[in-house]
Amino acid sequence: MLEHGGNLQAAAERYGIPIAKWLDLSTGINPHSYPLANIPAEIWQRLPQETDELNKATAEYYGTRHLLVTAGSQAAIQALPALYPPSVVAIPSVMYAEHAKNWLAHGHKVMPLDSLPEGDLPTEIDILVLCNPNNPTATTLPAPTLLRWHRQLACKGGALIVDEAFMDTTPELSLCSKAELQGIVVLRSLGKFFGLAGARVGFVMAEPKLLDALSEKLGPWAVAGPARYAAQLALQDTTWQAEIRRKLAEDSLRLKQLLAKYGLSPVGSHALFQWVPTEQAISLHEHLAKHGIWVRLFSQWSALRFGLPPANGWEKLESAIAAFRD
Amino acid sequence: MLEHGGNLQAAAERYGIPIAKWLDLSTGINPHSYPLANIPAEIWQRLPQETDELNKATAEYYGTRHLLVTAGSQAAIQALPALYPPSVVAIPSVMYAEHAKNWLAHGHKVMPLDSLPEGDLPTEIDILVLCNPNNPTATTLPAPTLLRWHRQLACKGGALIVDEAFMDTTPELSLCSKAELQGIVVLRSLGKFFGLAGARVGFVMAEPKLLDALSEKLGPWAVAGPARYAAQLALQDTTWQAEIRRKLAEDSLRLKQLLAKYGLSPVGSHALFQWVPTEQAISLHEHLAKHGIWVRLFSQWSALRFGLPPANGWEKLESAIAAFRD
Repeated sequence: MLEHGGNLQAAAERYGIPIAKWLDLSTGINPHSYPLANIPAEIWQRLPQETDELNKATAEYYGTRHLLVTAGSQAAIQALPALYPPSVVAIPSVMYAEHAKNWLAHGHKVMPLDSLPEGDLPTEIDILVLCNPNNPTATTLPAPTLLRWHRQLACKGGALIVDEAFMDTTPELSLCSKAELQGIVVLRSLGKFFGLAGARVGFVMAEPKLLDALSEKLGPWAVAGPARYAAQLALQDTTWQAEIRRKLAEDSLRLKQLLAKYGLSPVGSHALFQWVPTEQAISLHEHLAKHGIWVRLFSQWSALRFGLPPANGWEKLESAIAAFRD
Repeated sequence: MLEHGGNLQAAAERYGIPIAKWLDLSTGINPHSYPLANIPAEIWQRLPQETDELNKATAEYYGTRHLLVTAGSQAAIQALPALYPPSVVAIPSVMYAEHAKNWLAHGHKVMPLDSLPEGDLPTEIDILVLCNPNNPTATTLPAPTLLRWHRQLACKGGALIVDEAFMDTTPELSLCSKAELQGIVVLRSLGKFFGLAGARVGFVMAEPKLLDALSEKLGPWAVAGPARYAAQLALQDTTWQAEIRRKLAEDSLRLKQLLAKYGLSPVGSHALFQWVPTEQAISLHEHLAKHGIWVRLFSQWSALRFGLPPANGWEKLESAIAAFRD
């Protein structure tokens, strides 16, 4: 399997530091996660059911009724390639790697894009898969650009697939409300903004025909009942969402400024992470790990991705970075 | 999708009775489910991780270290057929229907068995899929019989696949400890005995090579973190397990006697359900539904499956059955 952020257990063994002592900045998960009350016993007991409450919460939060709940975005990333005929699938070279892995595994031809075109897409592309905002670079793409590419792909029976795992802090950029159009698929998730990566709840927005095929492929009850219940609570809670958007914007700026202070100015900034290409990526990653701080290293791009520290982690991060500079 | 027990929502709409007012006996799920305390926030926050605690709990409960956690047995039932070359797959005609559906969907030839052979299997069979105990008939098969069939199948590169979803009350019949042998696959689950159907936690026991292939196919993080945590607690709690085995044996006998009292003697009895073929299956199902009692109808076999009532459901069940007889 691919390496991911979050593999703290391996780091703990490698560096001989117990898991509880690490500052884990490797994942891009909101450290101020949605606070969940107790899950009612009946939710654990009965098979997961479609409920009006969750349907209402998702329709209001995502602005569409054309969606399917999946066991995290990962379930959709694994299943989507089987729903298309052999295709030329363009995917940015610097992007969350599970997409390319799964399209390749299903026998599609993957065309890595070192940069996105200014105008039309190359004509040989059938399917374009993007992360917007991009993970790990934090680049965002405006909806008009995406919709122009979508029209080009849809004309030939292709598709635009947008992974919006990091979209919740910039909902105005989302394509969710357009996903009922033929040839647009949007992925969302509770993992990052809501900080509920353990719940394994994702959503696919697409035209009904594709959702039906995906639902049949994924089968019944793939998402745990307690996870669906958590999703309902989190998506309904607009007060928490507004507060946390403000809090994340503050934290993101603070992290950007902290890194810049030590000559590590981010090239890309997201509310939940900073993207820092630097010649010293490998040695800084090693240095931080020895200090019990786990960030994500992209060695092929000589870059680091820093997630947000929790309230008690800022000082540790700054003193470790300062020590590297000394 | 296939119809299943648990589709109470459809029943509620059809009979105009609100969900909360139903006595749901349609599922074979233990009504005295494992009591879960609060799930720690960090379990919701972080990506699900393999933990020593869960590994230890599963190894002790199932008696083997050769296992994989899946999102319920259903995930394994859907994925296993893709791991075998085109095969002749024998499956009893009266059995949980998801197995046959998924082998057929993957292009295998499914041979329905109206009865199991006394001696050797027919030679054209490559793979034999069974539920032991069987759902819905409650028939059990002794390990020596299964192991003889396994040897016959393994010799030709085939496999014996045993769904032990209802095995927890008769662990002495389990093949879990044999599953490291090439060509045996055993499925277990937390849904029935532990009453945690909402958690979506299943286990596949098999030889390491098959588990690796299955793990790669299912991808990372398919099982929610809180569900894994619940599994750890439930599997560790041998005191609860012993108490509930006694309780279920009492309840099962009580249900059997209640049904017999009204001329509905079960043909098969399991700790968690009774199997009642009767000419009046359809009309009794309808009668019970009108009284807000939901049992599982198998119309093609003119039979009903009764799950165990909760403590406050016995009287309602008996008076509704008595009214049918009047």
